[in-house]
Amino acid sequence: MLLCDIGNTFLHFYHKGRIWKEKPYALTKKKDNLPIYYISVNERFERCLLASHPYCVNVNQHIGLQTQYTGLGVDRKAACSAIDNGVIIDAGSAITADVMQEGVHIGGYIMPGLEAYRRMYADISPVLNREIEPSVNLSILPQNTADAISFGVLKSIILMIKSTSRTKKLYFTGGDGKFFARFFENAIYDNTLVFKGMQKALEKQI
Amino acid sequence: MLLCDIGNTFLHFYHKGRIWKEKPYALTKKKDNLPIYYISVNERFERCLLASHPYCVNVNQHIGLQTQYTGLGVDRKAACSAIDNGVIIDAGSAITADVMQEGVHIGGYIMPGLEAYRRMYADISPVLNREIEPSVNLSILPQNTADAISFGVLKSIILMIKSTSRTKKLYFTGGDGKFFARFFENAIYDNTLVFKGMQKALEKQI
Repeated sequence: MLLCDIGNTFLHFYHKGRIWKEKPYALTKKKDNLPIYYISVNERFERCLLASHPYCVNVNQHIGLQTQYTGLGVDRKAACSAIDNGVIIDAGSAITADVMQEGVHIGGYIMPGLEAYRRMYADISPVLNREIEPSVNLSILPQNTADAISFGVLKSIILMIKSTSRTKKLYFTGGDGKFFARFFENAIYDNTLVFKGMQKALEKQI
Repeated sequence: MLLCDIGNTFLHFYHKGRIWKEKPYALTKKKDNLPIYYISVNERFERCLLASHPYCVNVNQHIGLQTQYTGLGVDRKAACSAIDNGVIIDAGSAITADVMQEGVHIGGYIMPGLEAYRRMYADISPVLNREIEPSVNLSILPQNTADAISFGVLKSIILMIKSTSRTKKLYFTGGDGKFFARFFENAIYDNTLVFKGMQKALEKQI
């Protein structure tokens, strides 16, 4: 079974335990007779997938999650449905945090992704057009512009996640998930979370 | 004495205790014989001021501050030099936080301003194009997209400032300074901080 998660930057694929990502306008050819089960939060990129492959099945509506939250993205739904208890952090174009408790989604929030932060500073002033430095020291106050930016971004995200997790287990996924996971003791990095949720939903259908 | 602080969005003026802001390309006429003492972090907007008034004096180099920080913006220098002990938060196009201890600048960091956050979410996805809701409840996990965004922005900024201030007094300035000050008990809002620093520097020269 070939699975695809269409996000706002990449299309992520999953096949027989292997994961890879492709750009929406440079999709590789897949075997014609292999169905692609997909979820999508981006209509434009969804059309790219449909144009590239003859046999695609949108499974958005099969991803079930018990929640009061209105407008929860289907990728967040899928990732959450793979975990019964814990905080799920998907760090991609945006960074979403969702709390699951005994199989029920309690709520969540959205922060910008690292690349969005970088662009945002560059937009404010050319002086602030700097890369986010992953190894900036978060224990001492910065002494230059580059550190001041990296510290502002990383520490605010980390404090936010800490205040949400407390004693709960943290599950990181997404492009920057591995990076953020290393700041926490009670953290697991699993870049298959969304696909696990999709598989769970599809198994129920069969 | 007419003072001017040229930022990345507005020019802020100070004259006889009164403060007002003007857009760089819609500057009002000032009395020709009145000198404008100014500091600037934006060359383009500085040229707007110079073109609008015959008698302008750049006082950037007179703003002194004891610090190890390289590349500290002159507006941050000015605001910090007005305070001997405390955390100075300037919440404008960017949100800067600086720690002063017995007249010495200890370090600081930079977060994006509220308007920059709003634009950034809109950039990631049209679904995330929402206003930041100032009254979002920061004590309970959000249950919809608009709250999830406002919560993500405001709580991460507030946690960051809390972790910096601890027992220190907080001094807020800038366009969104008043808004953020209300989240803290030990906070003072003073939109003249930059000008106080400028006056202090100019008095030393006389």
